[in-house]
Amino acid sequence: MPWKTAITRIEPGQIRLRGYDITELMGRLSFAETVFLTLKGERPKPAEARMMEALLISSVDHGATPPSSQAARLILSGGNPLNAAVAAGVLTIGDSHGGAIEQCAQVLQERAAQAGNVDEIATRLVEELRAEKKRLAGYGHRLHQVDPRSTRLYKLASEVGFGGRHMELARAVENALEAITGRALPLNVDGAIAAVISDMGFDWQLGKGFFIIARAVGLVAHAFEEWSREKPMRRFIVDDSEYDGPADRSL
Amino acid sequence: MPWKTAITRIEPGQIRLRGYDITELMGRLSFAETVFLTLKGERPKPAEARMMEALLISSVDHGATPPSSQAARLILSGGNPLNAAVAAGVLTIGDSHGGAIEQCAQVLQERAAQAGNVDEIATRLVEELRAEKKRLAGYGHRLHQVDPRSTRLYKLASEVGFGGRHMELARAVENALEAITGRALPLNVDGAIAAVISDMGFDWQLGKGFFIIARAVGLVAHAFEEWSREKPMRRFIVDDSEYDGPADRSL
Amino acid sequence: MPWKTAITRIEPGQIRLRGYDITELMGRLSFAETVFLTLKGERPKPAEARMMEALLISSVDHGATPPSSQAARLILSGGNPLNAAVAAGVLTIGDSHGGAIEQCAQVLQERAAQAGNVDEIATRLVEELRAEKKRLAGYGHRLHQVDPRSTRLYKLASEVGFGGRHMELARAVENALEAITGRALPLNVDGAIAAVISDMGFDWQLGKGFFIIARAVGLVAHAFEEWSREKPMRRFIVDDSEYDGPADRSL
Amino acid sequence: MPWKTAITRIEPGQIRLRGYDITELMGRLSFAETVFLTLKGERPKPAEARMMEALLISSVDHGATPPSSQAARLILSGGNPLNAAVAAGVLTIGDSHGGAIEQCAQVLQERAAQAGNVDEIATRLVEELRAEKKRLAGYGHRLHQVDPRSTRLYKLASEVGFGGRHMELARAVENALEAITGRALPLNVDGAIAAVISDMGFDWQLGKGFFIIARAVGLVAHAFEEWSREKPMRRFIVDDSEYDGPADRSL
Repeated sequence: MPWKTAITRIEPGQIRLRGYDITELMGRLSFAETVFLTLKGERPKPAEARMMEALLISSVDHGATPPSSQAARLILSGGNPLNAAVAAGVLTIGDSHGGAIEQCAQVLQERAAQAGNVDEIATRLVEELRAEKKRLAGYGHRLHQVDPRSTRLYKLASEVGFGGRHMELARAVENALEAITGRALPLNVDGAIAAVISDMGFDWQLGKGFFIIARAVGLVAHAFEEWSREKPMRRFIVDDSEYDGPADRSL
Repeated sequence: MPWKTAITRIEPGQIRLRGYDITELMGRLSFAETVFLTLKGERPKPAEARMMEALLISSVDHGATPPSSQAARLILSGGNPLNAAVAAGVLTIGDSHGGAIEQCAQVLQERAAQAGNVDEIATRLVEELRAEKKRLAGYGHRLHQVDPRSTRLYKLASEVGFGGRHMELARAVENALEAITGRALPLNVDGAIAAVISDMGFDWQLGKGFFIIARAVGLVAHAFEEWSREKPMRRFIVDDSEYDGPADRSL
Repeated sequence: MPWKTAITRIEPGQIRLRGYDITELMGRLSFAETVFLTLKGERPKPAEARMMEALLISSVDHGATPPSSQAARLILSGGNPLNAAVAAGVLTIGDSHGGAIEQCAQVLQERAAQAGNVDEIATRLVEELRAEKKRLAGYGHRLHQVDPRSTRLYKLASEVGFGGRHMELARAVENALEAITGRALPLNVDGAIAAVISDMGFDWQLGKGFFIIARAVGLVAHAFEEWSREKPMRRFIVDDSEYDGPADRSL
Repeated sequence: MPWKTAITRIEPGQIRLRGYDITELMGRLSFAETVFLTLKGERPKPAEARMMEALLISSVDHGATPPSSQAARLILSGGNPLNAAVAAGVLTIGDSHGGAIEQCAQVLQERAAQAGNVDEIATRLVEELRAEKKRLAGYGHRLHQVDPRSTRLYKLASEVGFGGRHMELARAVENALEAITGRALPLNVDGAIAAVISDMGFDWQLGKGFFIIARAVGLVAHAFEEWSREKPMRRFIVDDSEYDGPADRSL
């Protein structure tokens, strides 16, 4: 019994992506619109298309420090091809790196489905988290006190007329966090993306996918830069480990 | 001694990609233009931007049969997260799958640098390959007699006024192949992309990078579809292997 | 502040693994004993050493059908080096493939820590699982009605005088499963390994590690066989997918 | 048409590895002997078995600094499972890390096949390399002036009566390097393994495979230690990069 796929239909001389001839899309849609179409099955509305471009740009790169950039450079430095380096970078994008999108989107989608206004829902959520001493993914950032990318995504949404209950709830949670804990913990880019894709109707389980698609660009750039500027097996990692296992001994 | 990177500069509250504030790019550039900026260090000209959109769309997906789609589904089916599945797909994009872009771009860039008109260069190349009984990457396709994506990329280039010596040479080689061998071996999408990125001034060693960035989209879609529609460890692979090792024996 | 590692201490002219000079281990310990030493920090007792050899042998390979073998061959077939192929195979070893060891070891370790004899514990466990309609990892096998490898591990344990409460509990659960459900669901090799490593005192979270170390051998063999016997990009996967997405349409 | 595999034959209730019932191997062979059997198709002779144990032990781990250990820890630290961490470590084992085994084995196998005594062949090789200003893989080590592992492998070989033309040639090359260049560049562990597996009759293309099988053990230990001792996303990598791209600019 054959298994089913609803993504692409291939036959000699023809490639149909979600029903559309790929050669018709080429030159007519943008790449970001095609990302939307591929993942959702339908074309984005104009405001969605604008948001998708910005959302993907927001996550293209964050310099040489994130573990994914380091992993891509390490694997290339070990004497491997570009695809292996980028694969290692993508592999690094786990629950603790980029995973906040899906974790935050899950919470937003579950809570936005509840009755009541977003401020009430937000207050209830923050109080619950506080009682359970849990952190909420998508808020706060190691480096950026206010994440400029989430600010920009919200501003753009208001310019193009995009956004709904999930984006509102994400902001309401930010306010509730400050009101209840007395400490600002602003929405970061992962949280903003979570809110935007939720308002676009994407399943939260796809959250990491948007980050992967965007960051693949930066990973290719890092791997290529490593290849073109550095020697193999360089020591770009300063080993700072100290042995604390068994003292010297014999069999 | 610190090592250097020229991709992104990060400081609290600011992310500058190739010198540009990433929040300025969001809403002003398209994602595909940002791919160009990230990999090249400069923004594309309008015709380059149009080509970059189409080029990336052309490689987004090719159905469930390519080894990269299969690998992504296999790894997901083994009980792994989305990032591991996409990483496995990217890892599969080796010299024999997607690698034709860099192989063809290398030839085009080396030959286009030679003196003389493209027809002479093409004829010389094809005769050399014939004498050495070598295949030229970027020509011919398992499934598509004429690859509709390369046709579309050339047509779009002529519409937007893009293209130079590498695209001309790629066509000249196609003609020389038919004239000399008597057999049509049309430029495929890998070959067309190789020609386009060469005319954009990209190093051929980045060839696989464009394919990886584009195909990451399809891989996310396949992994997500596998997750949402199929059971773990399903037998979507029909094992067709036959044992021909040593017969039964004992120690 | 340096971070700590207790595995290996390196200095010029010397490599000390868990305190032992590696050149003293070479020629004195077996490879399997060194696996035990590396993971546990101490040398195995003789009976443990015998079990470790057999346990690792039991999982070396299971032919060309498991997803990990397929993934290794696929990635090699895409034109990638041996290390990338084996990496893809290892990546495949997820919760649904090889993951039963850690899942079963977790249950055995949690339940064996309870007061009472193993038959009572086993009965309670099976009744709980039945009420929750849950499957227990480590029991039953797609292909082997009785898994010959678990039988052999138990027989060897009795020969060399190895085994304790976890191995007893694992058998008691097998009996309880049949007694309560009326259907035989014999302990498979994953379950037997789970019981053995639990009696060796390993944390269940290391469960997948033993499978990975053993299967790496088979994966190297499959990747090498693919490289030496097959053409790149061969169709060893029979695509059996059927498109059921949107019908043909235009923008 | 089915494809062929000569590794393992599977049928209900039976697993035959290279013809042997796997349950017969369990308890009778050692794991290292089974590695030999799996890769070669035949059991090792006693001296070969002793060498295989030592050879695999020699490469089990080299502390926290090699890129493969770092990659395994990085990927785990990103919030990924053990298999993904080990896969990333294996992926790192490329031409510049562990690749010396296959590179050196290739040279030894090609040169040992030449007529003449090993000293003449060695002298010719070193002079050729000198003229081409090429390094020979398998000689010299970043950290160890004399690699204690290669010394041990040679000593063990003489104890157990193992070794032939490849091991002799490897030593002769060491002598020729010092005699001709006036600088000691002793055989390292990769070079010694290359010589040993060549005398065992393994194809040089399998070189990386032995290293992967051995190092998988250390990688599991590093990944598990990272998981059990460290917090996710820790900064064990000291980023020492400096931005030297375009200065701040606007669209």
